Amino acid sequence: MSDVSCYVRLDDKRVKCYGRISRIGKRPGFWFLKIRVGCYSDDIQVIVKKEQLDSPPTMYSTIHFTAEKKRSPDGLTEELHIEKILYYSPFDPADVEIEYDMPPELLRQKESQRLLTRKYQTILLAYDKIEQYLHEVSRKHGLLKIRAPFITFSDCEGGGETFELRSKIPEFFKKTAYLTVSGQVDEETVTSRLLVPTYIFGPSFRSDPSKTRWHACEFYHYEPEIPFIDLKDLMMLEESIIKGIISMCLDDDIFIKCLDYLKRDPTELKQFVEYSFAQISYTEAIKILTRTGVKFEVVPKWGDDLTKEHERYLCERHFGKPTFVYGYPSKIKSFYMLQGESFIDSEIDDEPLQICESVDLLVPGIGELCGGSIREHRAGILMEIMKTKGLDPKDYEEYLSLRQQGTFPHGGFGMGFDRFVMLILGVDHIRDVAPFPRYYKC
Amino acid sequence: MSDVSCYVRLDDKRVKCYGRISRIGKRPGFWFLKIRVGCYSDDIQVIVKKEQLDSPPTMYSTIHFTAEKKRSPDGLTEELHIEKILYYSPFDPADVEIEYDMPPELLRQKESQRLLTRKYQTILLAYDKIEQYLHEVSRKHGLLKIRAPFITFSDCEGGGETFELRSKIPEFFKKTAYLTVSGQVDEETVTSRLLVPTYIFGPSFRSDPSKTRWHACEFYHYEPEIPFIDLKDLMMLEESIIKGIISMCLDDDIFIKCLDYLKRDPTELKQFVEYSFAQISYTEAIKILTRTGVKFEVVPKWGDDLTKEHERYLCERHFGKPTFVYGYPSKIKSFYMLQGESFIDSEIDDEPLQICESVDLLVPGIGELCGGSIREHRAGILMEIMKTKGLDPKDYEEYLSLRQQGTFPHGGFGMGFDRFVMLILGVDHIRDVAPFPRYYKC
Repeated sequence: MSDVSCYVRLDDKRVKCYGRISRIGKRPGFWFLKIRVGCYSDDIQVIVKKEQLDSPPTMYSTIHFTAEKKRSPDGLTEELHIEKILYYSPFDPADVEIEYDMPPELLRQKESQRLLTRKYQTILLAYDKIEQYLHEVSRKHGLLKIRAPFITFSDCEGGGETFELRSKIPEFFKKTAYLTVSGQVDEETVTSRLLVPTYIFGPSFRSDPSKTRWHACEFYHYEPEIPFIDLKDLMMLEESIIKGIISMCLDDDIFIKCLDYLKRDPTELKQFVEYSFAQISYTEAIKILTRTGVKFEVVPKWGDDLTKEHERYLCERHFGKPTFVYGYPSKIKSFYMLQGESFIDSEIDDEPLQICESVDLLVPGIGELCGGSIREHRAGILMEIMKTKGLDPKDYEEYLSLRQQGTFPHGGFGMGFDRFVMLILGVDHIRDVAPFPRYYKC
Repeated sequence: MSDVSCYVRLDDKRVKCYGRISRIGKRPGFWFLKIRVGCYSDDIQVIVKKEQLDSPPTMYSTIHFTAEKKRSPDGLTEELHIEKILYYSPFDPADVEIEYDMPPELLRQKESQRLLTRKYQTILLAYDKIEQYLHEVSRKHGLLKIRAPFITFSDCEGGGETFELRSKIPEFFKKTAYLTVSGQVDEETVTSRLLVPTYIFGPSFRSDPSKTRWHACEFYHYEPEIPFIDLKDLMMLEESIIKGIISMCLDDDIFIKCLDYLKRDPTELKQFVEYSFAQISYTEAIKILTRTGVKFEVVPKWGDDLTKEHERYLCERHFGKPTFVYGYPSKIKSFYMLQGESFIDSEIDDEPLQICESVDLLVPGIGELCGGSIREHRAGILMEIMKTKGLDPKDYEEYLSLRQQGTFPHGGFGMGFDRFVMLILGVDHIRDVAPFPRYYKC
């Protein structure tokens, strides 16, 4: 097998490695160089004789070499001396656009060069780790990973936040094609036909003109879908998956090193692992919000959606931990959610409210992290709700047919993976967790 | 933790499970049902009393139940008797559009219902397994998984086979946006800045009006990129990764069961694992093709590209195993490939031929499975080649800047993962490896 790694032990005394220079020190006759070899460990220090380099070394220059371990002249420490330079390629200081401790807003404009910094290298590494654990935990829960298509033929849920596709060839597809905003509708087909718990992990897209630190036009979307699950078990599953992933991160020494590089205190993550998440109904949430005395920008009202401000109040100030809010009014949620009973809460209002089996997970520092529901599996009711919401059942023929062919209750949730990574790493802008973020006006 | 799996052991004697009915037998007073519980194992047989069901059972109906193991009346075997039906939902036989042993061409038109068949369920399961092993093997080789963007701003390589994106909001992005055809150009940035071996595994898109069994508009693309690698080591790495994945599949009992369900003989896969792949230069390939005496539709000619027919002759009839062909003429390959020497082969022609450090992997039954190269890391030469190929260096500013900022030789390859799955499973149409394939005129 060809060994492609950055650092190879040749024998007890000798190594071969490559990296970029991350610090330069000078001694008579020698350069003391720190070199970033991979992104898993601290930079290594090597000593190189002046005559081994044609010109003085510069920051970020590329070097490939063999080196030998030697005792220091005083015999106290071990030093790594470059034996042979296999390749050296300078980085002209005039080309360096980034500076030490440059604020993230500026670094974000140096999309390529920011990847030379420890911070962004660590984020990429940690992103990959979290992703690995997500797959591992999903499989431990018995979920089969499946693919949903990225090109779809419905302008999902009529939100209008989809990208449309054009080809140079007219009528390339029979219908107008869009980029997916969620794989759920197609995933339900697979979950239903195979009758197994599944999950999707793939990109979703939004043509949404938001420039906030939570919004990106492409992001990874995690979407489990489970047969015969009720709302209580769905919340339990969500909590178990999130705790599972974070626990695995906290048990991983390299991951802890990543948190250290990012100046993120691991104990801040323990709140997700050590305590049970709070669970309240939408109606209870409204009661808490209306009775608190806090003046919100938007007054909370039974029947209306919660704003980000309300969400953050509930999970940050009221409960101080991740909080499930379930049983939202049907009229503010998607058509595919299982319809519950309509009921009157005489403390609040004497109009009855139709609720659905939905659940959002609110998380301190983020607001909504996951949205989920039990799905409406009764064809007749589903068609009625579609009509109420102005959707044409003809656009959902396949989805409706599932409700006529051995239909059964099932449910699932969606989580924006990039936001989840932000949460774990304490990174406060979504454009920092992708090497090449895509956003409105980029 | 909530147990979401299809089959739960309640105690030594009792199980709880759900699935779809896959066969129905009748005995006086009883139904003998086969039920597909998950897709990992053979269907289970259960016995249900007539009075436990309101109506006669039908194929594909959904059933959720608890059952108890009992000795058969003759005491010889163990039987599973349904204790309680928790949920039953019929599939009306009039709605069944698929038939036993329906040819794949017809099944493909029943996109949703084909997922009720063992064959398609097995393909989804095996796809996931192969994907898992791909990640495992990549990590064993020290490659870091990274993301490349799916929305890009260059009509890559000018091929014109890209989808363009439109938003309802005018000038949503600063430039015209397309869907990626390959993550390589952006991946090179990450590999170069981090100076670590990386890989991408994500969807790529093609607006290509081909309707062959090899072409799809969206497919998973595997793209490793390695610093300081030469062509010989790149071939060794490709071979090692492919062998690694297939070996892991062959060592997995569930995977062997999948092959069995698909009537695929596992010994056919041993050719990929047991022998070294062949390696020949492009020039040698042309000599073999011109000397064989076989009449090809397109006459092989030094300087021209190989056709699918040529490729298949080389790997199927001449070598009878996977075959690397390296050192293609520059003029038929991409601009980013490392330029080699131009040379004259006096046996063939007295015109010199400029070659590049490219390598294609040809595989029996498929033709080209992987395309790779060492990348041109010298800015000056890269710009010259771009001009020769009619590309505007302005569109590749970022790519060129990598060649001026500590540039170094590196290389990688791309593999269409869906084709790789076809190869392993012996599935002969790409539309059969995705649950919802996307293709020209679909």
